[in-house]
This record gives sequence, C-alpha cells and structure tokens, in this order.
Amino acid sequence: MCQLLGMNCNVPTDICFSFEGFCARGGKTDDHKDGWGIAFFESKGCRIFIDAKSSINSPIAELVRNYPIHSTHVIAHIRKATQGEITLENCHPFRRELWERYWVFAHNGDLKDFHPKKTGFYQAVGNTDSEQAFCLILNTLRERFPENKPSLKDFYLVIQEITDKISTHGIFNYLLSDGEYFFAHCSTKLCYIVRQAPFAAAHLIDEDLTVDFSELTKENDRVAVIATTPLTDNEVWTPIQPGELLVFQDGLPIKFA
Amino acid sequence: MCQLLGMNCNVPTDICFSFEGFCARGGKTDDHKDGWGIAFFESKGCRIFIDAKSSINSPIAELVRNYPIHSTHVIAHIRKATQGEITLENCHPFRRELWERYWVFAHNGDLKDFHPKKTGFYQAVGNTDSEQAFCLILNTLRERFPENKPSLKDFYLVIQEITDKISTHGIFNYLLSDGEYFFAHCSTKLCYIVRQAPFAAAHLIDEDLTVDFSELTKENDRVAVIATTPLTDNEVWTPIQPGELLVFQDGLPIKFA
Repeated sequence: MCQLLGMNCNVPTDICFSFEGFCARGGKTDDHKDGWGIAFFESKGCRIFIDAKSSINSPIAELVRNYPIHSTHVIAHIRKATQGEITLENCHPFRRELWERYWVFAHNGDLKDFHPKKTGFYQAVGNTDSEQAFCLILNTLRERFPENKPSLKDFYLVIQEITDKISTHGIFNYLLSDGEYFFAHCSTKLCYIVRQAPFAAAHLIDEDLTVDFSELTKENDRVAVIATTPLTDNEVWTPIQPGELLVFQDGLPIKFA
Repeated sequence: MCQLLGMNCNVPTDICFSFEGFCARGGKTDDHKDGWGIAFFESKGCRIFIDAKSSINSPIAELVRNYPIHSTHVIAHIRKATQGEITLENCHPFRRELWERYWVFAHNGDLKDFHPKKTGFYQAVGNTDSEQAFCLILNTLRERFPENKPSLKDFYLVIQEITDKISTHGIFNYLLSDGEYFFAHCSTKLCYIVRQAPFAAAHLIDEDLTVDFSELTKENDRVAVIATTPLTDNEVWTPIQPGELLVFQDGLPIKFA
C-alpha cells in the first residue's frame, strides 16, 4: 500500500521538514518505493511533482526537500504498488479540473472488485483503483452540482455519501483538495497534528532532524499536518477515526458529522 | 508575448541542450520572464513543471536544465504576460484529460475579443486567452468525438477548423500533444529542425554551449525540435508558414493539407 502526507495552513508554509521524514519512507526507513508525488496549491494555481522513481533516489524529490515552496494546501504520496504498474501515469496525486478549480487526490488503500462505469466525464489515464475512485468522485460531484461549486456543507454530504459507497470495496484513506476545501478520509489509518503558538521543537522519526518551529513562525500561524503515521516522535498526533471524514480549514479540523 | 519550445522524437530523448538556450530567453538574452513551464510525456504519463518565476531564476528550471528526463513528446513555454496576471495558474503548458489521455497545450500570441461561451465541459482555471483557447479546442473535440479519440486525419480536420476560427482573433502560435499526436500551429512565427544521422555538433545562440550529437545518438535516432525562433546558430531551421498546422510523428513533420 502507500502513505499519505497532507498539509493545511492559515498562511503559506513550506513542507520541507515533514517531506524530509516522509521521503525517507520511500525506500530508506520503509519500502514505499514505487513512485511518489506532491501537489502544492498556490491560490488557484497548482503544481504537481511526480516521479516513478523512489522518493529517496529521485532528484526531483531532492529539489522538493530542499526548495521551500510556500503553500496552504499540500497533498503528497509515496507509492507501494498494489494495482497498476510502476509508471508515471500511476503516480499520485492525480489532478482534474472541476468548476474552474483544480482538484487533487491521493489514496492509500486497496479497492477490490471496484469497476465504476466508464460513462462519466472524467476517465482514468492510468490503471489504478485510486484514479478510478477519484474520477468517480468527480463524476458524481459534477452530476449533483453541474453549474457551480457548492457550499462546503453541501459538498461534504455528497463526498461522505460517495466515500461510504467506495469504502465498501476496501481500504480507502485519502486526501482531496482544490486549494480551498481540504478533505481527509480515514478508512484504516490516518492521523494529524496541529502546530500553533506556543510553537516548540519537533524531531522526525525517520531522520535525525529537529526543527524549532518557534524560530520560524509568527504568533498567529497555524499548520495542520496529516499523515498515515506520525512523522515526529516528540509530539502528540491525533488519530482520525476509521470512517471519519475531516475537513481542514486554516490549519484546523472541522467535524460536520 | 511568449516563446514556445517543442520536441518530438522516435526514441525518448532529453531536452537539456535546447532547454538551456530557451531558458536564457526568460530574463537573460530576452525578456520573457513572467513564468515558464515544461511538460514531458513518458508513455501515457505526463509531468509538468511550472513556475511563476523567470526561468533564469527558477530552481525548478535549473533542475530541468541539469536532470535529463527522457521523453518523446515535450512542450515548453516562457511567458511574457499580455493577458492574465503573473501567477502560477496562468503559466503554460495547461493540461486536461480527454479520451483517457492527458492533453497539453502552450500558446504564443494574443487573442483579442476572444470570449468563448462557458457552456462547455472544460473551463479555464486562470484568466489567460490561451487557457480559454485550449478549453475551446477540447470542448469542440469532445463534442465532435464524444466516445473515442479519432484517427489522426479526422482529428487534424477538426483541429484545423477550430484553429482557423480562433486565429481570426489574433496571433495563435501553439503546440498541442497527448504524448501520441503532436501538433504545431504557426500563426506568425514558429520554426523547426530535424536532427538525424549523420549527426553533427550544434551551438546555441543564447549560451556559448556546443553539443556534438554524433557522440550522444544512435544511427536511427531522429529528433524534431520546434521553437519560436532558432535556438542554434550553425544549423538550418525551417520556418513553418503562417497558417500552417504541422503534425510531428517520430521526429518528422507530416503535412495533411
């Protein structure tokens, strides 16, 4: 399977520290080495770096680790292939446009007997269950809200409904965002931490690296980091409950249910 | 306005040499410094690097200059903003999915009084004339061929028709590809060169850099490089005629008209 990393903040923040630890799991401290990817939203703009190489051997991952890109909505993924070959088109995150916004999706899990009809508008380019699930989500959303992006509440209800349906096929942890909304669904394993004042030092699990956030932040900054498993060993991460769909806004989780 | 760079080959080839010279025009030898981007197809997979910084100051452009990514279909762009702010969402190339393939588009020109109806499926995320033109092309193609990607010939006829219509609004040089088809339209300025055996040394115009392709190639390799203006000063580039729409396949231009 795979691992997920997400970030949602109230001010554009770089993800270098978390990505450093996350990357190590792509072949060094863990074996998720069948490709990786990361999407950064900068306002409505979105850039995605993907590579079918392992994240510890990818020059592009090295750039992302060392070059601070400031973003409020980030979704990253390291892959351990269960369905679909190790090719570029099967690397997460996937992206499509809907309602004049880019939507980005990454999945950790494995969906069995999952073959949504190919009648919708969005089609998968690769051959993963994940990209098919993403297309099904967007096709359903577009069907329900053909004209404009709905309110967060209306959106949430539909996303919850589709997610429940897809989850009957297997493990379906995912992150989804358009640079404004940010969804995190836990099917089996996902947790988060909110960093805000008073900031402290954090130490990675996967690399011997400490960052003192009190030296890098302003008083009102708030950053939520979401990951398959905790990235630091001296902070308390909150597990998201199986079946729970969280919305993050300005670095804080919101529960609708 | 902007500048375009494209590459189409019969075997995956890196574009480092051409991109080096092209990049220099993004703030060093020319003033196209309002962002840049490059798309690489690797089979059906596609990755795009974009940055709103000038290509000579972008760490991501530096990576692309130095890290050889091998691809058969490449589209690159350096921007000098005429319409739309200098933001990430306005950087070319743009990408959408159609018929289970990614389509990539970059434009050099300026379209006046161009406001296609927003009734189609594909909508622009940014506010450039270019992205709107791309969406209009895809919306028309989807309308004409709702189910499957047509043959190259049928595709060509429709693309020619849309291109002629859009061209009535102004300058419309563009490159379009899905990793299989590769189109280059010249409205005012676009040229190309085909490199094949016997290979020779090439020297950039914008940087004092020479590469001897005979040392780097195999006998059957063939590479077409398409650019707004020639990138080398010791080779003969062929101007594409205004109004001409060329298809490149395996490193060779094909004329349908």
